[in-house]
Amino acid sequence: MAVMPSSTSVQALQALDLDPAFALHRGGKLEVRSTVPVRDADDLALAYTPGVAKVCSAIADEPALANEYTWVSNVVAVVSDGTAVLGLGDIGPAAAMPVMEGKALLFKEFAGVDAVPVCLDCTEVDALVETVVRLAPSFGGINLEDISAPRCFEVEDRLREILDIPVFHDDQHGTAIVVLAALKNAARLTGRSLGDLRAVVAGAGASGVAVSRMLLNAGIGDIAVADSKGLVHEGREGLNPVKEALARDSNRAGLHGSIERALTGADVFVGLSGSTVSEEAIASMAGDSIVFALSNPTPEVHPEVARRYARVVATGRSDFPNQINNVLAFPGVFRGALDVRATTITENMKVAAAEALAGVVSDDDLSAEYVIPSPFDERVAPAVVAAVSAQARADGVARR
Amino acid sequence: MAVMPSSTSVQALQALDLDPAFALHRGGKLEVRSTVPVRDADDLALAYTPGVAKVCSAIADEPALANEYTWVSNVVAVVSDGTAVLGLGDIGPAAAMPVMEGKALLFKEFAGVDAVPVCLDCTEVDALVETVVRLAPSFGGINLEDISAPRCFEVEDRLREILDIPVFHDDQHGTAIVVLAALKNAARLTGRSLGDLRAVVAGAGASGVAVSRMLLNAGIGDIAVADSKGLVHEGREGLNPVKEALARDSNRAGLHGSIERALTGADVFVGLSGSTVSEEAIASMAGDSIVFALSNPTPEVHPEVARRYARVVATGRSDFPNQINNVLAFPGVFRGALDVRATTITENMKVAAAEALAGVVSDDDLSAEYVIPSPFDERVAPAVVAAVSAQARADGVARR
Repeated sequence: MAVMPSSTSVQALQALDLDPAFALHRGGKLEVRSTVPVRDADDLALAYTPGVAKVCSAIADEPALANEYTWVSNVVAVVSDGTAVLGLGDIGPAAAMPVMEGKALLFKEFAGVDAVPVCLDCTEVDALVETVVRLAPSFGGINLEDISAPRCFEVEDRLREILDIPVFHDDQHGTAIVVLAALKNAARLTGRSLGDLRAVVAGAGASGVAVSRMLLNAGIGDIAVADSKGLVHEGREGLNPVKEALARDSNRAGLHGSIERALTGADVFVGLSGSTVSEEAIASMAGDSIVFALSNPTPEVHPEVARRYARVVATGRSDFPNQINNVLAFPGVFRGALDVRATTITENMKVAAAEALAGVVSDDDLSAEYVIPSPFDERVAPAVVAAVSAQARADGVARR
Repeated sequence: MAVMPSSTSVQALQALDLDPAFALHRGGKLEVRSTVPVRDADDLALAYTPGVAKVCSAIADEPALANEYTWVSNVVAVVSDGTAVLGLGDIGPAAAMPVMEGKALLFKEFAGVDAVPVCLDCTEVDALVETVVRLAPSFGGINLEDISAPRCFEVEDRLREILDIPVFHDDQHGTAIVVLAALKNAARLTGRSLGDLRAVVAGAGASGVAVSRMLLNAGIGDIAVADSKGLVHEGREGLNPVKEALARDSNRAGLHGSIERALTGADVFVGLSGSTVSEEAIASMAGDSIVFALSNPTPEVHPEVARRYARVVATGRSDFPNQINNVLAFPGVFRGALDVRATTITENMKVAAAEALAGVVSDDDLSAEYVIPSPFDERVAPAVVAAVSAQARADGVARR
């Protein structure tokens, strides 16, 4: 095999490392450590051969013991194919690794979940499903990440069907949980229920579809979803099956055309598109409007512009109030599911996570600039964990 | 999906935990930790979005940067299908996990290599190769483990052909390196060279084949290999392709029949079979004989019995002198390969590892009870690392 010398010189690396982001990433962000001592031959004889043999035999006799005597029940695979990474698109598995490492460290820091980044060199649905199924004995849960739509829907659906461990596409459900929590609090602030609200969602990718689905399940008054070709409605040509189903279940007003049209008189805007929305369209929304402009790094409308018209404004950025950040959800969701050895993550468990997250903001603290807690609020993860575990038991999917 | 409650009661687990091996394994033996701080929003903005995006983009533009700005170049996958675990045989991927976790912690403790246990739910050669190839962007090396022969040979050969990172089946090459090192020192002790020695190997599985191949490459005088049906020789019916090749290259004396017959007058016995050899057969060996009875936990011949006849006796056990333990080789081999970003592990690199390992035992220290250093000898890993890195450079497979 031919050897390809790295073309990156020491000088080039030193130049990159002047940027704090590169300097921090040098050598990666994770390590694997032993949790047991290996000081001498006696330690080795317990942790490895011959002591390990009886543990293996016991698991061979009773597979459930793998959850007790290996790390499997505390470890989640963060699986990506690198096709939809941040706003960067299809950059491939190697370039996706810094994000997956970041995800893994957030799992550990925020909820004590061990997580392993797994960037796969395949993109076909069949190949992705097959590979994750083969990997599954090594993990207690599967966090799918940055897999492009519409493949991500089928990959998740099939894995959920096959595997008896939690499978969770964070771009979909993590986002949806946090949006629902923030929207519940925004409605609470303005004295309305979800059923009173008409929402418009920009984007029908992974997060746009999942947010729309979750808001529909939660009883939103109506919702219209737009993709790059305009509003999704029944009868529109060329819709993929996921959007076709969404067309049936949303847009009861039967709106056609541009997203701007739908925003006139709407109560809620949720931007998950990477595109922009005009100031005029935001101005045309109903009174006490709610604007979640979540694209990163550039929101669909600048939050300071949106604030001129909207009662509540949220973004995906940490430098404005009300940051909609998935880290508010996924660590606690998995921790809660793993703690009770849940076989799956049900819709109810996601709703319970959203309600718990919303509940962290008390009536006294609730304000237009505080509808969602900070990622560093230490009450968040325990609240989500407790709610998810309890709901798993209530739904009959807990194994302990 | 139906829920299968764990049938293991708290009482049953408490009973198991009375055994120190079970108690130590409770909850597993590994964790994943962050190597960077995540204390506040500023940290998060560097380690995750938005800071991570520029690192991803840089890798997308120049893939070799993944080695600099992710953990990939320091992380090895310990891959097994659970078909040949210790002496337990085909116990499946879930039950193999305690061994793979153990291997991973040894990688870290002995050479600072991060390692992730990957137990796969597939056993076909094509499926194993395909899966590891898909996983490869996430790892800097692949340590194959406890995959049964003869599939293990083809899996390794094909992965070595396809991938440009080190692939190393430890049951084969780790064992072979340590056996060669011990045998070199036993020959040194008795004033002979390898070319003076006629060896008999019991076992033609992964380790038996690899040890025989390595001794042949190192210039052993002659070697006869026996499997459960007796000595492997040209013309024996029903040999698989790997044994056929071995028949061509070994047993120049053309011996047929039982292993006992070959042992008469032989200089070296290497047991890698899980079977037993009679005291009479050991007694029939030549003067200054060398007996490596390596099966665990029961050596082919008890070392105290062997010592009545043999000059040098080694086992796989820590409670007798001269423990042949793979941990003397694999951590340093991978560390040495990763340090120079080797694209593969060459035969020369394995020989260099064996020579470095043998060299840790000085002429002054060398004795019948000390032909191989202890796994806890702190000189071992640095010596192996340096030799492997240097040889990778000499062989033109180093990328830095």
